[in-house]
Amino acid sequence: MAKPVRISLDGMGGDHGPSVVVGGAALAHERRPDTQFIIFGDQAIIAPLLAQHKALAANTKLVHTGVAVRMDDKPSQALRKGRRTSSMWLAIEAVKRGEADVVVSAGNTGALMAMAKVCLNTMAQIDRPALAALWPTVRGESVVLDLGASIGADAQHLVDLSIMGAAMARIVLGIENPTVGLLNVGVEEIKGIEEVKAAGRILREVKLPNLTYHGFVEGDDLGAGTTDVVVTEGFTGNIALKTAEGTARQIAQYLREAMGASLMSKIGYLFARRAFDALKAKMDPRTVNGGVFLGLDGVVIKSHGSTDALGYCGAIEIGYDVVKQELLGRIRDMISLSQDVRMQDSRAGALEAAAPAAEEKPD
Amino acid sequence: MAKPVRISLDGMGGDHGPSVVVGGAALAHERRPDTQFIIFGDQAIIAPLLAQHKALAANTKLVHTGVAVRMDDKPSQALRKGRRTSSMWLAIEAVKRGEADVVVSAGNTGALMAMAKVCLNTMAQIDRPALAALWPTVRGESVVLDLGASIGADAQHLVDLSIMGAAMARIVLGIENPTVGLLNVGVEEIKGIEEVKAAGRILREVKLPNLTYHGFVEGDDLGAGTTDVVVTEGFTGNIALKTAEGTARQIAQYLREAMGASLMSKIGYLFARRAFDALKAKMDPRTVNGGVFLGLDGVVIKSHGSTDALGYCGAIEIGYDVVKQELLGRIRDMISLSQDVRMQDSRAGALEAAAPAAEEKPD
Repeated sequence: MAKPVRISLDGMGGDHGPSVVVGGAALAHERRPDTQFIIFGDQAIIAPLLAQHKALAANTKLVHTGVAVRMDDKPSQALRKGRRTSSMWLAIEAVKRGEADVVVSAGNTGALMAMAKVCLNTMAQIDRPALAALWPTVRGESVVLDLGASIGADAQHLVDLSIMGAAMARIVLGIENPTVGLLNVGVEEIKGIEEVKAAGRILREVKLPNLTYHGFVEGDDLGAGTTDVVVTEGFTGNIALKTAEGTARQIAQYLREAMGASLMSKIGYLFARRAFDALKAKMDPRTVNGGVFLGLDGVVIKSHGSTDALGYCGAIEIGYDVVKQELLGRIRDMISLSQDVRMQDSRAGALEAAAPAAEEKPD
Repeated sequence: MAKPVRISLDGMGGDHGPSVVVGGAALAHERRPDTQFIIFGDQAIIAPLLAQHKALAANTKLVHTGVAVRMDDKPSQALRKGRRTSSMWLAIEAVKRGEADVVVSAGNTGALMAMAKVCLNTMAQIDRPALAALWPTVRGESVVLDLGASIGADAQHLVDLSIMGAAMARIVLGIENPTVGLLNVGVEEIKGIEEVKAAGRILREVKLPNLTYHGFVEGDDLGAGTTDVVVTEGFTGNIALKTAEGTARQIAQYLREAMGASLMSKIGYLFARRAFDALKAKMDPRTVNGGVFLGLDGVVIKSHGSTDALGYCGAIEIGYDVVKQELLGRIRDMISLSQDVRMQDSRAGALEAAAPAAEEKPD
């Protein structure tokens, strides 16, 4: 029998707290029976919820803590009050101790990032971790990062993001040499900010293994799936993600209104119901819930704070897949391999060439 | 009889050139018969196209020029080769000379912006113009800016954008005191970049006329229509816009696939056809085609480069409405009014208070 996947959960994280966490875990355990859970949080709340799910309860260890990070805590506040004691910290620490293979939290992103970074450290040669997620496209899925783990990025960080994203795409999407695009604007005047241009030059000049640099992509290339990986810094990435989610919700509402508008369209809806259900599943932001923090010495999955049990289950399933496919070890290998190339290249002065070329200076 | 609206067109701009421009103008003239056009461009190409549209031809002056700005010209190149001679420049100049009330171009954004700025200048007290557009929301429409006219923005520019956007919303959406939101990220750690935080403090502290500062909004507030105006700098704004357009196209494709998947869904489609048509119209990015450059001494409308005649007509209609409702004069009044308030406030030291407060410094 295969080794079970051991999943550590921040029982108190998220807008809806333990009910969504336990409900999501129950669903995930039903779908993937080779899972075991450790849930950290308020026993008085979580134990009765667990009691409603016998199969889950039999495979779950509940660890009590009265301390919870709030959704509006600043990272510094969260660390001050919750370091070594909160459900979020303890859930992350379970991964560090080797008691769990992956941790899932729907708690506040800043706090989760700060705690994960303090507890797990970043990988060698990576300065800052990034939040990556699978973005549904008309061609399938793409890996998009950074979706908000950090604000701003210099050229080297954008290159690191490219490497980590390509490693994730290689594993999760099964593509040997994923194409990587740098998110940029279509304004011909400037073609984006200096950092993005410099990163583009590095990626073009330094031949990295298992990564095909495509060039710049624009916002509409995300849904089109133009490249397997789309790289941007966290501010823009976060806004792009939420804009896409908002647009999907908006169109879903238009669709509901259109279908309810007349008797004819209601009849049409009945006939086309299965098609609508398939469409709904594709448009459901909960089915793609679950970001992966890349660049850390441990697998940390961030679920949306506002998700329900189904969405939380999706986040757990991403964690499950990532463990099963040994993403972390493979990223480590790729980073280390590319680091060799980058260092050789750096010695050869290729990185210095990343300074704006004279003919490209704005005039 | 009301004064006709005189519209100047860059006949050579856009991916598809004159055929879309003339086709769009013909459609616009059919819908709004009180329009007159000046079209600048290659007579040998445009004259035969015009001949196919008698009503339009009777109300159009065609001015020949052999010089056209290319879609891939850099702004500096466009200015070097096209200043005073290209169809784009001449179309803008027609507004400056008072021969037209508004100019529409589907040409490249950077070149159009550069030429408009050189030819028309920016409004007094505004440093840089911005590209604004009406964003369809579940509540109606919101004004969103800057969609890519410039990259990066300091706090004062974000405040200027707020004022211009509110003025546009007041006129175009008919809202006396539009709500204004600053686009930001949901990461609790940092709550966005310093400039956005500083702009938020200014807008909160300085009470501007005809503008209700709402606070920060996120990407999904765009489609939700949380505020009447959403303000961001051009890099992020451009990526948000294109991401939303891409998502709409993506879902439209899902919908087509779902409806064609089975006989039942095809029958359903027949019954619900009218509802689908209404939905399609709402999702059609061409119907909201047409950005408005704000902050210039003249009205410049940017149509998407890749649009068709219907989309180009939409851009012309926005220009028509903006002229009819005297947007420019009203923005001037509002800017000047708010400038008084801002200067009083600046003397009182309120702007200095925009520096990060000690307790908000990252620790």
